[in-house]
Amino acid sequence: MSITIRKATVEDSSIILEMIKGLADYEKLAHYVTNTVEAIEALFFEPNPIVHCLIAESSSKAVGFAVYLFNYSTFSGKKGLYLEDFFVDPDHRGLGIGQRIFDALIQIAQEENCGKMDWVVLDWNQPAMDFYHKYGAKPMKEWINYRLNEDQLKNS
Amino acid sequence: MSITIRKATVEDSSIILEMIKGLADYEKLAHYVTNTVEAIEALFFEPNPIVHCLIAESSSKAVGFAVYLFNYSTFSGKKGLYLEDFFVDPDHRGLGIGQRIFDALIQIAQEENCGKMDWVVLDWNQPAMDFYHKYGAKPMKEWINYRLNEDQLKNS
Repeated sequence: MSITIRKATVEDSSIILEMIKGLADYEKLAHYVTNTVEAIEALFFEPNPIVHCLIAESSSKAVGFAVYLFNYSTFSGKKGLYLEDFFVDPDHRGLGIGQRIFDALIQIAQEENCGKMDWVVLDWNQPAMDFYHKYGAKPMKEWINYRLNEDQLKNS
Repeated sequence: MSITIRKATVEDSSIILEMIKGLADYEKLAHYVTNTVEAIEALFFEPNPIVHCLIAESSSKAVGFAVYLFNYSTFSGKKGLYLEDFFVDPDHRGLGIGQRIFDALIQIAQEENCGKMDWVVLDWNQPAMDFYHKYGAKPMKEWINYRLNEDQLKNS
């Protein structure tokens, strides 16, 4: 099976939404997805977008994706690559597609002179953690994530 | 005491580096800071920068800062505001400067139509957590942070 990893174009917007929903379903968070094709077209494909997407294809069918953006390290003074979403279609797992996507992300981080690559994992998602540990990534459990959600922002 | 919150300009680059070092010192991580004034000038003040800075001033002296960038929620399809660094000079604490900076960040998130505002806190930094809890922010302990550092990226 031949796998191609490529940067997404605006024509992929509906596929990106399908993949987002697929990942949310796996994370048991599908009821939170309110994103739309139109919103994806606007933010991923505007000039100087803040958010980017890689698509993994097999026989011209999308079988995986990664959504990423660039963050910053005040310590190193360098950009970082932040992996927001990473998903392989359940019918196409165990074929090395996730590794191909992750390797492509590392290559982008190298090309962009990034000083780090960050992401988060749900604490019950052991298969994902096992995958990341193979790359030598370590959990940074001393850092706790905080958030104000949309309602809190509006009411502050 | 009159406090002004303003967006940083390229002339603030050395002040930004001082503040970064001040925060790193408080976090007991100062030995990791390799950032430079030149690197700050380049990444904060290029066209379409990925990273931004607010400065808090009292009597024309910088007394606090926040470094932030925009991230993305695949669930909402909206941008988010990510707070990377947030620091008030130790000699100027207890005067509400942190609250003024944080309120200005919330206002920027509102103006930019953000669906969330995110940040991380070191697990021993109870004063910071107490501050954030006043805004209704909650720790998201189910999400574990992972990272590949610069050496791991180079050797992958």
